[in-house]
Amino acid sequence: AELTPVHPGKPQLYLLKVRNLVYTVFTMAKRVAVILSGCGVYDGTEVNEASAILVHLSRAGAKVQMFAPNADQMHVVNHCDGKPAEGKRNILQESARIGRGEVTDLAKLDDTQFDAVILPGGFGVGKNLSDWAVKSKGFSVQPQVEKLIKAFHRAGKPLGMCCIAPILAAKLLPGCEVTMGFFGFFCRLSVSRWPYAQSTGIVKEMGGKHVNKEVEEVHVDAKNKIVTTCAFMCNAPIHKVFDGIGLMVQETLKLA
Amino acid sequence: AELTPVHPGKPQLYLLKVRNLVYTVFTMAKRVAVILSGCGVYDGTEVNEASAILVHLSRAGAKVQMFAPNADQMHVVNHCDGKPAEGKRNILQESARIGRGEVTDLAKLDDTQFDAVILPGGFGVGKNLSDWAVKSKGFSVQPQVEKLIKAFHRAGKPLGMCCIAPILAAKLLPGCEVTMGFFGFFCRLSVSRWPYAQSTGIVKEMGGKHVNKEVEEVHVDAKNKIVTTCAFMCNAPIHKVFDGIGLMVQETLKLA
Repeated sequence: AELTPVHPGKPQLYLLKVRNLVYTVFTMAKRVAVILSGCGVYDGTEVNEASAILVHLSRAGAKVQMFAPNADQMHVVNHCDGKPAEGKRNILQESARIGRGEVTDLAKLDDTQFDAVILPGGFGVGKNLSDWAVKSKGFSVQPQVEKLIKAFHRAGKPLGMCCIAPILAAKLLPGCEVTMGFFGFFCRLSVSRWPYAQSTGIVKEMGGKHVNKEVEEVHVDAKNKIVTTCAFMCNAPIHKVFDGIGLMVQETLKLA
Repeated sequence: AELTPVHPGKPQLYLLKVRNLVYTVFTMAKRVAVILSGCGVYDGTEVNEASAILVHLSRAGAKVQMFAPNADQMHVVNHCDGKPAEGKRNILQESARIGRGEVTDLAKLDDTQFDAVILPGGFGVGKNLSDWAVKSKGFSVQPQVEKLIKAFHRAGKPLGMCCIAPILAAKLLPGCEVTMGFFGFFCRLSVSRWPYAQSTGIVKEMGGKHVNKEVEEVHVDAKNKIVTTCAFMCNAPIHKVFDGIGLMVQETLKLA
């Protein structure tokens, strides 16, 4: 049996194919908010992570709406040399480069209208959705993002996160479990390399628990309904990052 | 039998698994140049198309290097409202947002070092890699891009293209066959919608042949070794665009 959404994004109508017969099936699509923080790994959202999330949500027939804060980025980084550059950029406008224009001001997000929220990584999480990149341990989360994550958690709705985004959960939901990769003694034996091993320390310092996982794996904190995968926290090939994000999306939708 | 690259991107070494036995196999990886034109569908590369190309090339074990012209974009577009905005942006620096910094000046591309070239779409193709967006039929192609495409064609190396990028092949390689989607009388009956139907006209005006294909399909011009898929030329769900690009990448690698 094969279930195909007729209009992904609005998939009330499915075609169910059993052997050579096709039935129409009506279901409610899972409504998922995806929160972006710009466009580019060093000052915004990691574009490949965001795109992978959109592909997997589309294949699952979820109804997706993208959001981003309507405010200036912390700064702009020249992605060729990794150094800060001149000029200001608006987080919402830059995020719309990933979303082909279809990104809404985060201030307008009504959490009662969604079943799950997913956050890709990129330094925008620590620069535009929080001030982690500047303040490290004592950082605070952008108020709209804090309100959103707490509201979803309170309502028992799942949060899917990858790369550096789990630091927001660790900060706001004390005692939660996340993965940001595979660290510790056996780290060097792993096929993938982990350049940001120090990031896990901050999870522990905030009272969270870090769980080692490889790039194709996820950690599911079933109690808190938080699904995490490390994505580009490691130097793995991009198709493994894509597959890990796929599992994160699937597990998040299962909890919704 | 299952063939897994040990180090994708440098895959001289493969593990070949036959039943329960694992053999090591040495092969030459296909070397693929990916040409970017900025970051964002309305003034640069369509980021989701570029990301899909990178995922599929990585899974196939290809050795990938990204390139972009080191020059100013034609202009900058606010992706929220689709209108031109203030400021200048460098095509190479913006492309590096997709490539996580790993994008090389197109002037340094040595075509003898690559087996295939792939171009994602986005209006950057018509604004930064050519002046099609301004001049329509009488447009010219950016000299480095023209030299590259002609050199690959002369050497019998394949070109993979999606979305609007096939106009470059139609311009430079008279009589070639490309698809930019599914148009004509039955267009309205198609599951996917095609907002850019007029673009096919220009292919015919330049003496090329347009072949109707759905979003998950590709057209292979075996004589000219050109593989095309329509990607976001239609309003199909993103996972179908991803799958069509996957087929384009596979067929391009087969010809390399």
